Amino acid sequence: MRVLGVDPGLTRCGVGVVEGVAGRPLTMVGVGVVRTPADAELGHRLVAIERGIEQWLDEHRPEYVAVERVFAQHNVRTVMGTAQASAVAMLCASRRGIPVALHTPSEVKAAVTGSGRADKAQVGAMVTRLLRLDAPPKPADAADALALAICHIWRAPAQNRLQQAVAAHRTLKGRTA
Amino acid sequence: MRVLGVDPGLTRCGVGVVEGVAGRPLTMVGVGVVRTPADAELGHRLVAIERGIEQWLDEHRPEYVAVERVFAQHNVRTVMGTAQASAVAMLCASRRGIPVALHTPSEVKAAVTGSGRADKAQVGAMVTRLLRLDAPPKPADAADALALAICHIWRAPAQNRLQQAVAAHRTLKGRTA
Repeated sequence: MRVLGVDPGLTRCGVGVVEGVAGRPLTMVGVGVVRTPADAELGHRLVAIERGIEQWLDEHRPEYVAVERVFAQHNVRTVMGTAQASAVAMLCASRRGIPVALHTPSEVKAAVTGSGRADKAQVGAMVTRLLRLDAPPKPADAADALALAICHIWRAPAQNRLQQAVAAHRTLKGRTA
Repeated sequence: MRVLGVDPGLTRCGVGVVEGVAGRPLTMVGVGVVRTPADAELGHRLVAIERGIEQWLDEHRPEYVAVERVFAQHNVRTVMGTAQASAVAMLCASRRGIPVALHTPSEVKAAVTGSGRADKAQVGAMVTRLLRLDAPPKPADAADALALAICHIWRAPAQNRLQQAVAAHRTLKGRTA
């Protein structure tokens, strides 16, 4: 399973591709950051993010895209930009028919460190260990994107079972309606 | 000046095209709503909004796109979807090189009714009067989209002067740096 993790942001959008299956050692395929200038117009920044995400999809052909689920109750000043960057990432994936999975920051932290309240350094250390890297990926957004991809690989079996159950239920409802 | 106004939303995205210049009677060119099913996956809803906005841009070739500026402090439950839908609208416009203008809800209300705290009915009544329609456009999202377009036509001369001043200042800074 090859997963592109996206830690959405207007200024820095972390991207990381991880390959593997739950219960086996994972491989980092690529990691990076899509940046847009803070003084550019919002529409142009979204176009730049789209272009960046498209390049990552073209180059690495992931089977899934895992995006951080954004909550409104977080930092009010940055949350709108985060929501807008995440919309672009989801749009790029869905347009290609690539399934999009959303994971909350605490789900991601819990998946890679065992604690939903782990700090950035702990997440970076575990990503480094799990992917057998020489040093934590920088900036933190890049490490977070890899953590999202790892989280998806490990959570996917359970999520897929749930989605299949929901789909089966909808089919059943359609038949009886 | 032909303006597409977009009142962003995941379930109902209001769209309205108005033509005219400040100080002259305005003309409604088209009005409608891009809808997406609430039970669809978020990525697929964003793709459907993209497709809908693209159709409106193809058909009406606006020179400007005016989008409601979304604030995080509003209704927390819907604000993330609104931000994501607005990102798609801005992306579609900017990708084509169409300038995007953001107006706050109170700027729009003040422009068409004279009060930044006007209610939906008042906005609908003024849109009906200003565009010489037989009845207020429904749903309210469609009327709000027309109000955004009207607001932009009336505010554009001032906004353009401001943008030119900012651009001139940046050029000047670039020269002296």
